[in-house]
Amino acid sequence: MTTSERRPRAGASRVGRPRRSSPVMLEEAAAELFLEQSYDGTTIDEISTRAGVARTTFFNYFGSKGDLLWVELDAAIPRLRAALDAPEGPTPGLESVEAALSRVADGISAARVPWAIAHRDLMGTTAELQATGLARLLEVVDVIARHLSRREPTLGDAGARAAASAIAGAAMAGAAQWIGTGTARGPLADHIREAVQPVIVGWRARIGAVD
Amino acid sequence: MTTSERRPRAGASRVGRPRRSSPVMLEEAAAELFLEQSYDGTTIDEISTRAGVARTTFFNYFGSKGDLLWVELDAAIPRLRAALDAPEGPTPGLESVEAALSRVADGISAARVPWAIAHRDLMGTTAELQATGLARLLEVVDVIARHLSRREPTLGDAGARAAASAIAGAAMAGAAQWIGTGTARGPLADHIREAVQPVIVGWRARIGAVD
Repeated sequence: MTTSERRPRAGASRVGRPRRSSPVMLEEAAAELFLEQSYDGTTIDEISTRAGVARTTFFNYFGSKGDLLWVELDAAIPRLRAALDAPEGPTPGLESVEAALSRVADGISAARVPWAIAHRDLMGTTAELQATGLARLLEVVDVIARHLSRREPTLGDAGARAAASAIAGAAMAGAAQWIGTGTARGPLADHIREAVQPVIVGWRARIGAVD
Repeated sequence: MTTSERRPRAGASRVGRPRRSSPVMLEEAAAELFLEQSYDGTTIDEISTRAGVARTTFFNYFGSKGDLLWVELDAAIPRLRAALDAPEGPTPGLESVEAALSRVADGISAARVPWAIAHRDLMGTTAELQATGLARLLEVVDVIARHLSRREPTLGDAGARAAASAIAGAAMAGAAQWIGTGTARGPLADHIREAVQPVIVGWRARIGAVD
C-alpha cells in the first residue's frame, strides 16, 4: 500500500478499503463542500483542510479546482486511447470503437457516478462543466478520429473526423443518460452502446463492409 | 434602411452595401484588433472605438466580447429552431433534421466563414472558443432532441437525445471541416450533409421506416 496508495487505479471499486487515498479524500471533501456552499463558494484551501491534507498535496493530484469535476472522464480518456491502440483483433476499425468504449465504460461502476455532473444544480457546477467540457470532448474526438484514420482508410481524414465526432457526441449523450437515470441505472456500457451503435451502423453502411 | 440597418439579417450577403451596420462594423473592428493584438489583449472599448461607435452601442448587439466569436452560430440556432418548427411536410422527423440543417447552412455563404474559428491560432481565440462552445453545442442538441421527441415517438426521450447529440456532433465536424478547408471550400451545407447523413441512416435503420 505504498505506490498503490499514491496512485489508485481510477474507477476501481473502493469497497472494503477503509484507509482511503488522498485523491479520494480530496474528492469526497470537495463533494461535501460543493453541496454545502457551492462550487464557486469553495476554495482549494478549504477542500485540502477538510480532506486533512496539505494544499501542495492537492496539486499532486489535480491541476485546478475544475479538474475535480472530471475525475472519471480524465481517467477514461487515456484508457480509451490504450484500448484503441491495442493490437488489431478481428474487429474492424469502426466496430472496435464501440468495443473500446464499452470496455472503458465497464471500468466505471455505478458507485462512481460523476457527482459533480449528477448534482450540478445543487452544487452549482453547471457553468464550470460547460466551460471545461468541450476541450475534453474534443480530446475524445481526436483519439477516436486518429484510430479511424488508421484502421478505416476508406473514410479519409474528413470522414474519420465526422464519424468520430458523431460517436463522441453519442457517447456523451449515453453517459449523460446514465448519470441522470438515478439509482435504477444499469451499467454505463449499456447506455453508451445503445447511443453509439446506430452511428457505427450508419457509417458502416456508408463505407461498405470490410472483407 | 432604418430597422434593417439596426438588425441586419445574420448571414445575409452584404455585397453592394457600402454603408455597413454597427454590428458588422464592430465585427470587422474586432477581427482586425484580434489579429493585431490577440483576443485577450483587446478590450470592448478598443473595439467600439475602432468601429466608430459608442460602448453602449456594442452592448446593443453583443452581450460580451466572447459573443463576437459565435455570430454565425448564434444567428443559426434560432433559424434551425424555426426550420424544425415549420409545419410538418412529407419528410419524416429524422430526415427533416438533415433538411433543416442544410437549409440553415445554405444561409451562410463562404463569405461568412467564422473568422474567429478560422484564424484561432493567429487571434488567440482557442481557449475562449472552447470555454463558450459547449453551451452552444448543447443548445443545438436540445433543439434537435425536442424535434425528434415530437416527430419520432418511437425513439423515446433517451433515443431522441442520443440521436440529436450524434447529429450535432457530426454537424460540428462538418462545419469545422468547411471552416478549415480554405478558399477551395464548397457550400457549408454539403459538408454538413456529408457528416450528418450516416447518423440519420443509422438511426433510421434502428427505428425502422415510417409508413
